[in-house]
Amino acid sequence: MLAETEILVRYAEVDRMDFVHSSRYLEWFEIGRTELLRALGFPYRRLEEEGIFQPVIEAYVAYIKPIRYDERVRIRTRGSLQGVRVRMDYELVRDGEVVARGYTVHTCLNRERRPVRPPRKLRDVLGLI
Amino acid sequence: MLAETEILVRYAEVDRMDFVHSSRYLEWFEIGRTELLRALGFPYRRLEEEGIFQPVIEAYVAYIKPIRYDERVRIRTRGSLQGVRVRMDYELVRDGEVVARGYTVHTCLNRERRPVRPPRKLRDVLGLI
Amino acid sequence: MLAETEILVRYAEVDRMDFVHSSRYLEWFEIGRTELLRALGFPYRRLEEEGIFQPVIEAYVAYIKPIRYDERVRIRTRGSLQGVRVRMDYELVRDGEVVARGYTVHTCLNRERRPVRPPRKLRDVLGLI
Amino acid sequence: MLAETEILVRYAEVDRMDFVHSSRYLEWFEIGRTELLRALGFPYRRLEEEGIFQPVIEAYVAYIKPIRYDERVRIRTRGSLQGVRVRMDYELVRDGEVVARGYTVHTCLNRERRPVRPPRKLRDVLGLI
Repeated sequence: MLAETEILVRYAEVDRMDFVHSSRYLEWFEIGRTELLRALGFPYRRLEEEGIFQPVIEAYVAYIKPIRYDERVRIRTRGSLQGVRVRMDYELVRDGEVVARGYTVHTCLNRERRPVRPPRKLRDVLGLI
Repeated sequence: MLAETEILVRYAEVDRMDFVHSSRYLEWFEIGRTELLRALGFPYRRLEEEGIFQPVIEAYVAYIKPIRYDERVRIRTRGSLQGVRVRMDYELVRDGEVVARGYTVHTCLNRERRPVRPPRKLRDVLGLI
Repeated sequence: MLAETEILVRYAEVDRMDFVHSSRYLEWFEIGRTELLRALGFPYRRLEEEGIFQPVIEAYVAYIKPIRYDERVRIRTRGSLQGVRVRMDYELVRDGEVVARGYTVHTCLNRERRPVRPPRKLRDVLGLI
Repeated sequence: MLAETEILVRYAEVDRMDFVHSSRYLEWFEIGRTELLRALGFPYRRLEEEGIFQPVIEAYVAYIKPIRYDERVRIRTRGSLQGVRVRMDYELVRDGEVVARGYTVHTCLNRERRPVRPPRKLRDVLGLI
């Protein structure tokens, strides 16, 4: 499954080169993740309320073309399982062109911050993707 | 050459899991970069004034252990050349333990935002590392 | 004139109290400003391209009720003139309820970062409000 | 009592005008707060562990002169009581010159996020200031 959502670049996100700052891409990936989990029927807010946390344990970004203030960017997110880990893949698309790409890897923790397997139903939907 | 600098985790950097947010690591890596370039005799501020910009074209982070509010973290940064690109490697160290690791890759752009080779002297010092 | 736009709270915007961090409100106010200037026919991006910069010289926020992750918030923005300065007033509205309020004051600078009067046409539209 | 601490402006904190973004000042004020509470014997981290939270309910900033990348800025913080509220006053100083000024007002909440009076000892030390 593929989730798509769109953002409009904020002034605060752009550095003095007039490029979106490298760190903001990870914030945007998180928006993508939020929308994918929602589309899969597991809003992340609810996951946390049920005591499931998914911290990032790995992140990678390829910054292909600079992104600037007030541009519209689509975030495309796909999820998959890597053993007991969840992997998310992202593409940032501007005017039909992929301007960045990346992924994050997540473990699942319970309320005591101990590693647990992702909830069965989440594994099922991600396994199908 | 290795540059080291220390930060104290800000309240604003921590998310509701009580972990430093994944995006902030890239901001910290940039602090490490700033200090490495300064130690090498090329303060980044001066590089930009001379018309040399070094945008990030790739970034990777391995989040090994969570980092929390008000903790002290050392940023260790090393630089090297990858052809015409500059690569920086980072370690985040808390109480002598590596709690994150990562790297960034940079091109050099001139004022017109066109790719150029890193300045000769910078290549020299990075090549020696 | 009143500009309205909506945002969805990002995970990265929430602190460990589970409240949106105080600093993010100023980033949101800026989104409101961007939309108001666009609605008035002066997209801020174009203003800067024409050499008009509007740095914030004063900001105030009243945080009335906490805002949380994944909530929808409307930003309502109004602009007016204060002599040679531009003032923007903001309301953040969740489910019809005002949860924060604030304002910013701006000077106009030219490319050399020297104070100038706001462009005539902008003064005209703001004066009418 | 006055707490002082110093920061070095990060690249990520500067916008495309080459000025520190208005929102970052509130993040810096929080650094000042952290140091003042530590100096008073009430590290904020410990306050939260004991179930006392101090969300911001009001914030004001006067941006007097722009601050730029790689500049050193001292944060001077003073605290006082306003009835059951805590008020913090800040000055940002560069090379001996005040370049920004502001304040924040805070309530105290307990773990259930209900308003409580500030802890007796904190009131005592703040009342003496």
